[in-house]
Amino acid sequence: MTGVLTVVGLGPGDARWLTPAASEALASATDLVGYGPYVDRVPGTPGQGRHSSDNRVEVDRARFALDLAARGARVAVVSGGDPGVFAMAAAVFEAVENGDPAWRNLDIRVEPGITAMLAAAARVGAPLGGDFCVMSLSDNLKPWEVVEARLRAAVAADFVVALYNPISSARPWQLGAAFKIVSEIRAPDTPVILARAVGRPDERIRTEPLSQVEAASADMSTIVIIGASTTRLIGRAEGEAPYVYTPRFYGVRP
Amino acid sequence: MTGVLTVVGLGPGDARWLTPAASEALASATDLVGYGPYVDRVPGTPGQGRHSSDNRVEVDRARFALDLAARGARVAVVSGGDPGVFAMAAAVFEAVENGDPAWRNLDIRVEPGITAMLAAAARVGAPLGGDFCVMSLSDNLKPWEVVEARLRAAVAADFVVALYNPISSARPWQLGAAFKIVSEIRAPDTPVILARAVGRPDERIRTEPLSQVEAASADMSTIVIIGASTTRLIGRAEGEAPYVYTPRFYGVRP
Repeated sequence: MTGVLTVVGLGPGDARWLTPAASEALASATDLVGYGPYVDRVPGTPGQGRHSSDNRVEVDRARFALDLAARGARVAVVSGGDPGVFAMAAAVFEAVENGDPAWRNLDIRVEPGITAMLAAAARVGAPLGGDFCVMSLSDNLKPWEVVEARLRAAVAADFVVALYNPISSARPWQLGAAFKIVSEIRAPDTPVILARAVGRPDERIRTEPLSQVEAASADMSTIVIIGASTTRLIGRAEGEAPYVYTPRFYGVRP
Repeated sequence: MTGVLTVVGLGPGDARWLTPAASEALASATDLVGYGPYVDRVPGTPGQGRHSSDNRVEVDRARFALDLAARGARVAVVSGGDPGVFAMAAAVFEAVENGDPAWRNLDIRVEPGITAMLAAAARVGAPLGGDFCVMSLSDNLKPWEVVEARLRAAVAADFVVALYNPISSARPWQLGAAFKIVSEIRAPDTPVILARAVGRPDERIRTEPLSQVEAASADMSTIVIIGASTTRLIGRAEGEAPYVYTPRFYGVRP
């Protein structure tokens, strides 16, 4: 079998964050497979097949891509951000494990990308400068009790917390519940960053104290970063957003 | 003040992982500042100042760069991986907070990069496909008790765990102690990935069961990823490394 399947991370919206390695993988593919808006971001090359699908059909999309590769195609599965972080790579391997045994012998690669939390953090300073935990707040694929237990554990151990998939029309209350859990442990002035559509024309980023942040300020395109007890704001001139960072040291400054 | 300071992420070793935005920031800088081996990775442009320094003098290096920018230079502080993840960005903001008040009004930017865990994960499959925690195992900047408490909390809550700075000649026992803590909670067959020098010619990546992994197999250039209870291996043909991935779902497959 000579097919190749590469799961390619496009990074956040800005094409200047697409790595040269990812660009090459896209340009050399015979077929692009992915969620429509991601496929639309790829310029494409003559003769290249373009297979767009809806969101939330990740494993079906993965099977389709594996089947194409098994027929000898050079397939790029396009993914936002980094494919390994709450994106298409795990779906592809789920499909491999549970699908045609021949798929295990395909050449399957993952091409990393800038995941949204890194771009969001970069916009405000260095809030991920200390130890941090990364969670999907969606309870579509795991019970809410697991989400809640992990969030409590992360906050109690004073990790910075980055939340993907914080809210959607089908999951309207979870982010508010998460802020409530965090408020039981963290101080009211803990900085919370809401970074929406980072790298896209409609980017909007704000930092608010935990006591004032509202879940309704986030949407499906938002990454939420909740500071640790050590996360700090550096005030700047009038009208400028403060820098937000988490020092590398913990406890007494060395 | 017209100076600009950009903390630029070079990504892991492979230049094909350097984003176009990072390349632009490097090319337009009047001065490059950084740890010698990182500065050496940048091709440079005519007339550009190159200021290399030793490792472990991050805040001094940050102050030097801020002072240059305050004199009107366009400075790029080069950082491996992503500058916001256990790299130079937090050191720059520490220097800003505790330094010359005029530095707060400089134009300070962070240009994100592919951080090592993303590249390491991509090489083996999708081990970061579920919720995960990211820690520096160094106790140079925080007490070992904090490292240990965070690691226990992360493992008990069944996060995947990515460890940066796992071992060095000055910190020889910490990684072994970490594996011991994890072994008290996780199963002996939990996959542990040791990814050394990802993207460099001397790259070496192996996956071993927790019961057999040895701290001596890691060095300063290694990223360690410890699977969650759900992390799985997909066996392949004789002689091929297995794929490693963490499914998105938790508990009963939906």
